Amino acid sequence: MAQSENPDHKRWMSFALSLAETAAAIDEVPVGAVIIMNDKIVSTGLNLKESTKTVTKHAEIVAIEAACRKLNTWRLNNCKLYVTLEPCMMCCGAIYQARIDEVIYGSTDPKGGCLESLYSIHQDQRLNHNFTATKGVCADQSAALLRGFFKMKRGK
Amino acid sequence: MAQSENPDHKRWMSFALSLAETAAAIDEVPVGAVIIMNDKIVSTGLNLKESTKTVTKHAEIVAIEAACRKLNTWRLNNCKLYVTLEPCMMCCGAIYQARIDEVIYGSTDPKGGCLESLYSIHQDQRLNHNFTATKGVCADQSAALLRGFFKMKRGK
Repeated sequence: MAQSENPDHKRWMSFALSLAETAAAIDEVPVGAVIIMNDKIVSTGLNLKESTKTVTKHAEIVAIEAACRKLNTWRLNNCKLYVTLEPCMMCCGAIYQARIDEVIYGSTDPKGGCLESLYSIHQDQRLNHNFTATKGVCADQSAALLRGFFKMKRGK
Repeated sequence: MAQSENPDHKRWMSFALSLAETAAAIDEVPVGAVIIMNDKIVSTGLNLKESTKTVTKHAEIVAIEAACRKLNTWRLNNCKLYVTLEPCMMCCGAIYQARIDEVIYGSTDPKGGCLESLYSIHQDQRLNHNFTATKGVCADQSAALLRGFFKMKRGK
């Protein structure tokens, strides 16, 4: 079975997609993220960049900061991050510094993604932490959500 | 005159160094940052990763988030960021996405820096914003502060 067909991955990614839909409903680029440890939700995040007028508030950062608060540590070892879109450079930097073990993502971001599109940060041996990356989980749903959002924005 | 000898650069970097000293006093890796627009301070930041137990709270991110709050926008065009240490990947990602025009930094970070050491993010033409980077401003003071901090930590 391809990792992108893993039922656990699909289950958590569906949850991340529902967060992305919530982001779209408040006029944010629809991206959602969930952090899981031992098959339980540690934290969730949705893109809040426009609502908070803060450049750092991508879904992944919102989820990572919430996980740090909940676990009372900046070390997120043994955590998996599910995110509907390939993470950008800022988010990849936060992910490796938080020691997250695994990132599972949906659609690719050719313009800004840093796990396959522009860089492969998770495999950079010079960094003090590497992690596995699984792509393409519910990718079609994520891509459709993003396409619909930008089409709606252009139509305004 | 070398840009690293520019009196304005030295003036603001001295201020960033005082923030780095404050970080050391609360047992944080001593890094400080200041954001300047039109020769005025917009915001300041010091490394708060341990105190807040939050992986994202590097000096640059603290300063960028404070600047977004103050200016009520995530777009920090026409801003300069002074930081005592070469920024990491996460911070470089936040810097280019915030459209910051110029980064002036002190010492280099061979293990994690992304403006000369591991990558040259500011010059990556594939990203939607590039910025200038000036290195070596008050580099000796910054390096001495970091060396002293880690020596003290090892001695504990």
